[in-house]
Amino acid sequence: MPDYVRARPHLSGLVPGDPLHVREVGDGNLNLVFIVRSDPAVPGVVLKQSLPWVRVFGEGWPLTIERARHEADAYAVYRAFAGATNPVYHGFDPVRYVIAMEDLAALRIWRTALDDGEVHAGAAAALGTFVARVAFHTSDLGLPAQERKRLVARTINPELCQITEDLVFTEPVRIHDHNRYSPELEGVVAELRADGAVVDELSRLKHRFMTHTEALIHGDLHSGSVMVGGGRTVAIDPEFACTGPVGFDLGAIWANAILAQARAVQLGRPAGFRAHVAAILPDSWLAFRDELLRLWPERVDDSFTDALLGDWKRTIWHDALGFAGAEMIRRLVGFAHVSDVDTLDTAAKVAATTAGLAIGRRLLLEHRTLADPAAVRELVETGLSEHR
Amino acid sequence: MPDYVRARPHLSGLVPGDPLHVREVGDGNLNLVFIVRSDPAVPGVVLKQSLPWVRVFGEGWPLTIERARHEADAYAVYRAFAGATNPVYHGFDPVRYVIAMEDLAALRIWRTALDDGEVHAGAAAALGTFVARVAFHTSDLGLPAQERKRLVARTINPELCQITEDLVFTEPVRIHDHNRYSPELEGVVAELRADGAVVDELSRLKHRFMTHTEALIHGDLHSGSVMVGGGRTVAIDPEFACTGPVGFDLGAIWANAILAQARAVQLGRPAGFRAHVAAILPDSWLAFRDELLRLWPERVDDSFTDALLGDWKRTIWHDALGFAGAEMIRRLVGFAHVSDVDTLDTAAKVAATTAGLAIGRRLLLEHRTLADPAAVRELVETGLSEHR
Repeated sequence: MPDYVRARPHLSGLVPGDPLHVREVGDGNLNLVFIVRSDPAVPGVVLKQSLPWVRVFGEGWPLTIERARHEADAYAVYRAFAGATNPVYHGFDPVRYVIAMEDLAALRIWRTALDDGEVHAGAAAALGTFVARVAFHTSDLGLPAQERKRLVARTINPELCQITEDLVFTEPVRIHDHNRYSPELEGVVAELRADGAVVDELSRLKHRFMTHTEALIHGDLHSGSVMVGGGRTVAIDPEFACTGPVGFDLGAIWANAILAQARAVQLGRPAGFRAHVAAILPDSWLAFRDELLRLWPERVDDSFTDALLGDWKRTIWHDALGFAGAEMIRRLVGFAHVSDVDTLDTAAKVAATTAGLAIGRRLLLEHRTLADPAAVRELVETGLSEHR
Repeated sequence: MPDYVRARPHLSGLVPGDPLHVREVGDGNLNLVFIVRSDPAVPGVVLKQSLPWVRVFGEGWPLTIERARHEADAYAVYRAFAGATNPVYHGFDPVRYVIAMEDLAALRIWRTALDDGEVHAGAAAALGTFVARVAFHTSDLGLPAQERKRLVARTINPELCQITEDLVFTEPVRIHDHNRYSPELEGVVAELRADGAVVDELSRLKHRFMTHTEALIHGDLHSGSVMVGGGRTVAIDPEFACTGPVGFDLGAIWANAILAQARAVQLGRPAGFRAHVAAILPDSWLAFRDELLRLWPERVDDSFTDALLGDWKRTIWHDALGFAGAEMIRRLVGFAHVSDVDTLDTAAKVAATTAGLAIGRRLLLEHRTLADPAAVRELVETGLSEHR
């Protein structure tokens, strides 16, 4: 690894002085992540390398290393407008599939921070603003039509999208090897699988995800893909980036925020922290909406009228609630779980999962009619109080 | 041209015997079309070559010859399921941008046939069936998800889509050099431009066209892109093919059928012919619906439930009516007109245009609520009888 860095002047300059200290910190499912520093206490550079399989599953689940190119491409696109919400991006090595990026030493994963009961006041709004900027600048509002179509073609991400399609929309309501949940939940999960209305909504949302190419969405914007600290919020790991419905990213934020709320209830966290977590959905939504409205006058095609903006905003709102329901369910009974719930003791885990499934189900079934954040808050609070 | 054919054995074999008879018959805006035959009376082969500009506009409107590749690609994709509705396709020359295809000698352009008052009984149903097969086999119903995404990437058609976006959705309600209409219509057209609801609907439909990548649509399926005769119906000229909303193709068929109806009324065609033209919309819709339902059980992804089918069918119906409204208006006041109306005498042309604009406007404004073909028929008949 030191040789790799020293052979590349644009990286070497970021970590002057020898010897280099290298630490592998990847805790995701798909990649190796190296922190490279001259001084162990001073931020250096992060190198992220794709492995040709799903790490947590071993070599039995092969996975294209092309995902690194998609992640690099997303960083490069987002760089133009995302400001400090994008990590500083130092380039991509298309031979070894290595992304070089900022060493976010002072920041930690948002999910872990929430697990620990930490308040990071600006995170929700920063993410809402980020999603709005992505929605604007990578859609037909911000890019000339032909340029955008070329972006769509280049960023089509078949393998990673297939993972989302399978893991989020299909497998959680089937009997499948990938699914995991406590035996105590067998009854609840069986009920969910047998719920035709749930299966129908997942089918509809899957089709939306597969056919609505609104913007270059992040594609996996849960709290584990966000880093926070020192007043900064950074969205990382956009390897699932593809052109899709904007609501998918907001839905991922919201679903994971609600799961953090379920944890906070189970652990009896202070009211202040619980209110902080409950505010993630409204805060990110309002920031999203405000930023989209702020950018709207800059659209490159003024044949898009205010009526279209209103429609699209409503579509994104309702989509996001549906996608949030799907994301909650799959994080509770599907392949990829969340520490928010999985690190609870068994009784608390069962209670949080039952609450989460009930809320996820209602979000799925009611996503087209829930009018505003207040209605969602009531739905969430009802679900959390009925299963505590 | 004879040399070109003789140098290519797969073409030469289609037209054995010398000398070759070559006739240029292109009457479109964009291409040269040569019929090549050994015997002038026996079908040979058709060669279609892209010109690097919009022909009718001269060299001042450059246009990518890549469109020939898109047309060839669409023929190659459609060949797998479209049967006789696709012309026999003999391949593409990527150096000279020449498509070789069936010489459809016994068939004529459907629009011309309708202009002449000819009845071609199966045409509407054949087209409805064709659109259903395209909808099924080039969407996530008929193609595995990853394969379909690669199809979407390959068939993205930025330049031709831009023409549709500009000519169909934007320019007709603006003051623009491209627009043409009789001076008598200035008042009606000005009213349309000032109609905020019309402009809003065009804005919404444009965004749908640009972001809903449902299937590899034909992209320009008006009656001039259809050939009929001897009981056969063939869809030609798919150079605008791109992944888009399925309703766009049905809308093009319907809009041009209604314009043919307006002509029939003006010319006092027999009731039988008028009924034939009025049946194009219901007949193509029913054939579309039946074929889509017939194919549905063969979908490659059984996580798509019947609810999704019902939703998508409704979406296509309502989209198609909106797109039909946009197509009618642009064919009457925009850049590319239709012979159905333009070959009428001035008084009849003004009456047909006024009726068409009124019907197009109502289709735009009411497309989300019109329930079925009977409701549309009433709307159309009202429009035609109020402006005759």
